[in-house]
Amino acid sequence: MNQIEKYIRSIPDFPKKGIIYRDITTLLKDANGFHIAVNAYQEILKKYDFDLVLGLESRGFIFGAPIAYNLNKAFVPVRKKGKLPSETIYEEYELEYGTAQIEMHTDAIKKGQKVVIVDDLIATGGTVEATTKLVEKLGGVVVACIFLIELEGLGGREKLKRYPVESIIRYKEF
Amino acid sequence: MNQIEKYIRSIPDFPKKGIIYRDITTLLKDANGFHIAVNAYQEILKKYDFDLVLGLESRGFIFGAPIAYNLNKAFVPVRKKGKLPSETIYEEYELEYGTAQIEMHTDAIKKGQKVVIVDDLIATGGTVEATTKLVEKLGGVVVACIFLIELEGLGGREKLKRYPVESIIRYKEF
Repeated sequence: MNQIEKYIRSIPDFPKKGIIYRDITTLLKDANGFHIAVNAYQEILKKYDFDLVLGLESRGFIFGAPIAYNLNKAFVPVRKKGKLPSETIYEEYELEYGTAQIEMHTDAIKKGQKVVIVDDLIATGGTVEATTKLVEKLGGVVVACIFLIELEGLGGREKLKRYPVESIIRYKEF
Repeated sequence: MNQIEKYIRSIPDFPKKGIIYRDITTLLKDANGFHIAVNAYQEILKKYDFDLVLGLESRGFIFGAPIAYNLNKAFVPVRKKGKLPSETIYEEYELEYGTAQIEMHTDAIKKGQKVVIVDDLIATGGTVEATTKLVEKLGGVVVACIFLIELEGLGGREKLKRYPVESIIRYKEF
């Protein structure tokens, strides 16, 4: 078990029976745990050149915002539909039942800007794939997608195979 | 106009006619704007002694998380009901039409811990007041509530009069 994994709490049968939920709130509420997690993202990101951090609502904000601050990058929130006040574009992605939409401001990315997508966890990768489409519609370039936790075997990495996918902790059971 | 205010975009008639929405995404997407905003929170927080940063979902995460990281504090997300996986308590607060609930893990705060509540904006203060109740139910102590933007005259400061309320930019029109 690595030094970050010990801060993560595993909760059986959430959100439904048979699922093991990986809870990061126990990491966040330990100042040291939060520090080493943010630092681990940043260590990996050293090998990428980029302009913007995109954080996915809402746990992606918790890691994306300190990374943007520390590395002196801009921060762009990718939000659920209906929350952004100016002109937007959106993409739909699939949920277990039905679909949802995520949205960005059309002026969030300038043509040619290099973007890193940050979230806490990747499972099926649907939200992140939708985000890559938004970035490219706006003329941006996705240089990496990075996650604290990767749930392996759910197809996320495959869905994002056109991009470098980075993760810090990987689970085979969930 | 102070140096932070110039990064904030005012959008008339959002979310409805007659309202001027103060949009922080234009601040966030400028690395310098984001930096000086986070630094402004931190400058004010120098006079408070505290253990935890509470960020309110979801824009409170964008400022609360870097503040927690930079000041080496724990970060606790206060979330909309139904998103936290372990044992929780919740409080209800009033919206324009109807009510909503916010929730925290019961183990998020230890008895006696000193807490700063961080959000991007205070208007009527309903969510923040509900958060103070959660903190106190868990035995925590609210040492300050801090916001980038204060919409004056909507009763937020009055509703939180038992606590120090700090804000960086104040608007009288909205």
